[in-house]
Amino acid sequence: MKDCLFCKISQGEIPAQIVYEDDQCIAFRDVNPVAPIHVLIIPREHISGIAAVTNAQQALLGHLLLVARRIAQDLGGEENGYRLVLNNGVQAGQTVFHLHIHLLAGRQLGWPPG
Amino acid sequence: MKDCLFCKISQGEIPAQIVYEDDQCIAFRDVNPVAPIHVLIIPREHISGIAAVTNAQQALLGHLLLVARRIAQDLGGEENGYRLVLNNGVQAGQTVFHLHIHLLAGRQLGWPPG
Repeated sequence: MKDCLFCKISQGEIPAQIVYEDDQCIAFRDVNPVAPIHVLIIPREHISGIAAVTNAQQALLGHLLLVARRIAQDLGGEENGYRLVLNNGVQAGQTVFHLHIHLLAGRQLGWPPG
Repeated sequence: MKDCLFCKISQGEIPAQIVYEDDQCIAFRDVNPVAPIHVLIIPREHISGIAAVTNAQQALLGHLLLVARRIAQDLGGEENGYRLVLNNGVQAGQTVFHLHIHLLAGRQLGWPPG
């Protein structure tokens, strides 16, 4: 989508530290990391958030979680643990309205989660 | 699995405030809520965490996220936003080793998420 930051990253128009990509999704380092490992996993297709997905995108959602797990393994975040976070809407802290999963690892993560 | 708290809830052996269930998953209120809406969505099948899922469970993972979204809608958490959280491992704060998604809504959620 025009003027979507994450669509531009997906299309290579804006640079990012990419850690994984395939035909359905791309993953890159968060520019404002809050943990030693902080990666965003996004679908290439523009979806504004989890509230906007359709039942037809069930497989895509599952794929995003499997990719998050794989990246946690690849980056060494799996041994001690990691957290996956999806924000939907302003009150949840969503700032870019293109669906993304935060992968956080590399430090003790507190509770509550925000 | 024997001695798994969440398996016992899924099988009705331990009571819980159930908000949704189907043949694949069940969702219930967290007994230690950290937000006005705080629900756990779990697969009926015993999976210790996201690190233990297989590629064959891709559809199940997608289903869990779609159910989380549906519950957010049903409980009135969608309008202002909600956060979904998956913890894997001790450092991420996972305390019950049966895969579960936290759904948090009903208040402003801070950043970082723990």
